[in-house]
Amino acid sequence: MTVSAVLFDVDGTLVDSNYLHVDAWQRAFAELGSPADAWRIHRAIGQDSERLIRSVAGEHDDDWVARAADLHSRYYRELAPRLRAFDRAAVLLRAIDGRGIRVVLATSAPGDELELLLDAIGAPDALTATTNADDVEQAKPDPGILEVALDRAGVGPSDAVMVGDSVWDLTAAARAHIRSIGVLSGGVGPAELLDAGASILFDDPADLLAHLDDVL
Amino acid sequence: MTVSAVLFDVDGTLVDSNYLHVDAWQRAFAELGSPADAWRIHRAIGQDSERLIRSVAGEHDDDWVARAADLHSRYYRELAPRLRAFDRAAVLLRAIDGRGIRVVLATSAPGDELELLLDAIGAPDALTATTNADDVEQAKPDPGILEVALDRAGVGPSDAVMVGDSVWDLTAAARAHIRSIGVLSGGVGPAELLDAGASILFDDPADLLAHLDDVL
Repeated sequence: MTVSAVLFDVDGTLVDSNYLHVDAWQRAFAELGSPADAWRIHRAIGQDSERLIRSVAGEHDDDWVARAADLHSRYYRELAPRLRAFDRAAVLLRAIDGRGIRVVLATSAPGDELELLLDAIGAPDALTATTNADDVEQAKPDPGILEVALDRAGVGPSDAVMVGDSVWDLTAAARAHIRSIGVLSGGVGPAELLDAGASILFDDPADLLAHLDDVL
Repeated sequence: MTVSAVLFDVDGTLVDSNYLHVDAWQRAFAELGSPADAWRIHRAIGQDSERLIRSVAGEHDDDWVARAADLHSRYYRELAPRLRAFDRAAVLLRAIDGRGIRVVLATSAPGDELELLLDAIGAPDALTATTNADDVEQAKPDPGILEVALDRAGVGPSDAVMVGDSVWDLTAAARAHIRSIGVLSGGVGPAELLDAGASILFDDPADLLAHLDDVL
């Protein structure tokens, strides 16, 4: 395979943040009088905030949606000291960059969250570019954010591969005609990731690193 | 079908507690200098504490295991005000009891945690009996706790059905020769629950209640 760029999702893929997001969203919804089950929040993670809120908490006016997003942001920032990259995530990014393959982060998170995630990963030298929810009108599962990522990498979809942990990542990759690799580290089961279009699965970044020759 | 007793798991099945357990375990392991990924903890939930600790954090001496269990217990108690039964959980238990079918709770949680869970459910009148980790040497996936539950219900395995959200619940039911029903409310994917032996799946207690005539 000739791969010129690897596009990485970040939450649940490179950083162990999904469960902290579940916690922050659950507290936000409870505080607004609309308690939500943790599993439903977990399955909605990977989409942008507005879509997540509407899919979990139902229809509310724009003001309510904005307040939920603000509360999530506040609680998530409180949890930020616990953000931790998965084992060997930085080594993985540097190994790919070291092969002359461009590494682009493509996340549905807003820009301020991405800063926290980049600090947790600690491999800015390995990154060609980043994109986040602020770059597009609609984040995953719309393919837009991946198209921006391809554009920044300067490659076409057939020269890239996407790595993600959520159904939304893999659906977005399929819509953008990009081959995808699923990781279990976000807590979504293997059957769901394969159904969403993953070509192959690994446990986490360390497992992908150990099999890099098989997929690049 | 003639069903004389329904055995219910509690964490993730009747009460939205799995993600709070993930949080409490993750903090406990980090504090002991052995950080663990949230998704690995999530998948280990449903077993008793000692088995969960050894499967997630590897081999440690008995003192370390006891300290991890104590820290989890402390952090979980801090989160206890957030324990919430799933929608219609109490109605479900009363509907089953109202049909003259015995309702038995069978959990891998220790007795003090079960008290918190019973408070969250709020339907003590519907329960024939409870069993918990304190009643047996080994909790799920060993079938022992379900055998105690059957004994307390006064029925044989072919007259009972087990409801659970984790692979461990369904594996224990299969080993005890009890038909099982899986629920997605604990955050484990449907394919894994079917693989572990669930005869049918529902989203959560409300969904099971809506289809009670199909399974009892």
